[in-house]
Amino acid sequence: MIQMAPLIRADLEGLDARDALAPLRERFTLPEGILYLDGNSLGALPKATAARVAQVIEAEWGKDLIKGWRQHGWMALPSRVGEKIARLVGAEPGQVVAVDTTSINLFKLLAAALRLKPGRKTILSEAGNFPTDLYIAQGLAELLGSGYRLRLVEKDEILDAIDGDVAVVSLTHVDFKTAEIHDMAGITAHAQAKGALMLWDLCHSAGAVPVALDRCRADLAVGCGYKYLNGGPGAPAFLYVARRLQEALEQPLTGWLGHADPFAFEPHYRPAAGIARTVCSTPSVLGLAALECGVDAMLAADFAALNAKSTALTELFIRLIEERCSTFGFTLASPREAVRRGSQVSLRHRDGYAIVQALIARGVIGDFRAPDYMRFGFAPVYLRYVDVWDAVEHLRRVMAEAAWQRAEFQSRAAVT
Amino acid sequence: MIQMAPLIRADLEGLDARDALAPLRERFTLPEGILYLDGNSLGALPKATAARVAQVIEAEWGKDLIKGWRQHGWMALPSRVGEKIARLVGAEPGQVVAVDTTSINLFKLLAAALRLKPGRKTILSEAGNFPTDLYIAQGLAELLGSGYRLRLVEKDEILDAIDGDVAVVSLTHVDFKTAEIHDMAGITAHAQAKGALMLWDLCHSAGAVPVALDRCRADLAVGCGYKYLNGGPGAPAFLYVARRLQEALEQPLTGWLGHADPFAFEPHYRPAAGIARTVCSTPSVLGLAALECGVDAMLAADFAALNAKSTALTELFIRLIEERCSTFGFTLASPREAVRRGSQVSLRHRDGYAIVQALIARGVIGDFRAPDYMRFGFAPVYLRYVDVWDAVEHLRRVMAEAAWQRAEFQSRAAVT
Repeated sequence: MIQMAPLIRADLEGLDARDALAPLRERFTLPEGILYLDGNSLGALPKATAARVAQVIEAEWGKDLIKGWRQHGWMALPSRVGEKIARLVGAEPGQVVAVDTTSINLFKLLAAALRLKPGRKTILSEAGNFPTDLYIAQGLAELLGSGYRLRLVEKDEILDAIDGDVAVVSLTHVDFKTAEIHDMAGITAHAQAKGALMLWDLCHSAGAVPVALDRCRADLAVGCGYKYLNGGPGAPAFLYVARRLQEALEQPLTGWLGHADPFAFEPHYRPAAGIARTVCSTPSVLGLAALECGVDAMLAADFAALNAKSTALTELFIRLIEERCSTFGFTLASPREAVRRGSQVSLRHRDGYAIVQALIARGVIGDFRAPDYMRFGFAPVYLRYVDVWDAVEHLRRVMAEAAWQRAEFQSRAAVT
Repeated sequence: MIQMAPLIRADLEGLDARDALAPLRERFTLPEGILYLDGNSLGALPKATAARVAQVIEAEWGKDLIKGWRQHGWMALPSRVGEKIARLVGAEPGQVVAVDTTSINLFKLLAAALRLKPGRKTILSEAGNFPTDLYIAQGLAELLGSGYRLRLVEKDEILDAIDGDVAVVSLTHVDFKTAEIHDMAGITAHAQAKGALMLWDLCHSAGAVPVALDRCRADLAVGCGYKYLNGGPGAPAFLYVARRLQEALEQPLTGWLGHADPFAFEPHYRPAAGIARTVCSTPSVLGLAALECGVDAMLAADFAALNAKSTALTELFIRLIEERCSTFGFTLASPREAVRRGSQVSLRHRDGYAIVQALIARGVIGDFRAPDYMRFGFAPVYLRYVDVWDAVEHLRRVMAEAAWQRAEFQSRAAVT
């Protein structure tokens, strides 16, 4: 994309000037003096959010009170926001709802998967999966007893480990530490050929990398609203169930809003038709209103262009690290090949924790994951090419000046 | 409290003028021309909420982004708001968190209760319990199989039904249809004497009637944030686990934020100490910030005075119905004895649905529950004595003019 002589900042100003996606940045509030490379952990604030949430509070709840449930479509929010997220993850309508949390949705769908595959007792995952995914599977297996188990293998052992006892393979599409992308189509096909269901966690994918759930014939998926979907801290999550599985799907969190007729107040649960049976409780109206603003900001963009920019930003970061920080002992933990990498670059360094703290002190917000991963997320909706230059320049100075050796950056007491 | 001659509106103006709690009403936004008797379904909007949520969005999330988790105490919200709710339900510190939804919290605690009582296979509840409580118990029993079951009995059969197979008795403290209050201390003691655990659903109690979880030696409880706690539509819920049970408690929704050390990212779940192990996911920051405003409004009141006013309002409503609406065929479905009645009065009438619609058209917001219950909630924080008079007067006119017979009030299409 760029000439091969060492880059200078002006090159990147040129890229920004020609960037058709640049106006998207105006949809977000970004604090002065901050280079925010942590949208993979908590997305930035869309400018529309504050006014929309204020409207829900003051004009809807405040003025119409209980009538808001119908008058303002609150009851339909899980479905309405879910359908919008569906467009970001390659799902036809009627298969996604925005509801509850990633962990809770995972519990619902893993439990449902085990019931769809009677006789099979294993949930298969990888040892490096995001911990909550493992904890939830452990909690479910322990609750069920009777030989149900979570089996953990290394990334390169997954395909071989899918045997006749595996009911469901549960993987995170983009690795939270390294941003490595799993081959969704290939692993899904392999799992299904072995008689297992395939569940994808899209926490680090939705809004960040191309996802084609339907085309890959995924069975089940969950994902997060507060990372690349910019829904705000603790935003509701989402889940996907392929249409072909929905009528047989029995999930155990059978709350009243997943009932076929919630306001009939029948004493016995009858699941709603279709994806609605995965809803459990009264929806979080404030949370869903904020999430919808974040999703709308993503839908305003051409998604192919967004993915191309995401790749360009991470490529650029890696190239600049190679050109300008090659002597500081960083190891690239993310795949060098762009197509195998999410919208994040991870570097490993023995002193990664202190380096991240020193960067934060300079206004460059990345994060650290034990034992030695420095994570830098590149949300293409609000980051510029010059931001990548400036972040690398801050990192170069931190290293050149050995700033990270100062005592205040060494203390682990401040770990987030 | 009042002279025995038939009341006139001026009597009630006098009560309002002397009401020490009257200033509390100023903490709420109440739309002009509306008599809101549905705080038992969705509480009114505290005036503090909009500004507080705007602050979280703009000043916390918008300015500090990921740093908000520590800088603004977001991670501590489940505990901070939980401790405030604890004061409303008679719980010493360290036993309540505000988190997830009522249904999900119920699932956690029912599953935990079954594990605490191995060998016992029955969840006992009453047929008239709020449906989501029954659905969740059914969902859990079906998931577990192996003879686990939900057994439903009538209200007057509960005590006798607690046999050696009952692991947990799950009841809603204040009946959602009739506002009848269960004897928390008596049933709890009886259940425990029979070797069962006692779980109370406080959805229609918290913020509405005196609750003394610790003094009644309750084991477990759940409750709702969007009714009398005024947390807003779909607000987070809460749960209580008596301290003596916490270290043995194993709940199955073992998400990362219930882990002993979430940011160590260990592959195996280790429960956090104490009540924190009942937290599952990243907390809903917007939802909890709004809920905290609602709870703060309740904590601003003297709770004994609040309960006395709640009783006085429902007494007054019943008396005025008797004095002014005795010829219209209403049956009182709530207990006549104040101490056995929550902060709500239910009337039964064959045409209850249409009558409620006709009242709503006049700005009197109650609600309807099949087959023939008209529910009127009396939130003492924002209702006046004259509001009760005016509501009854509207009802009297609807009945006297047979307004409810008009076609637009008969259609069931509009049921909420």
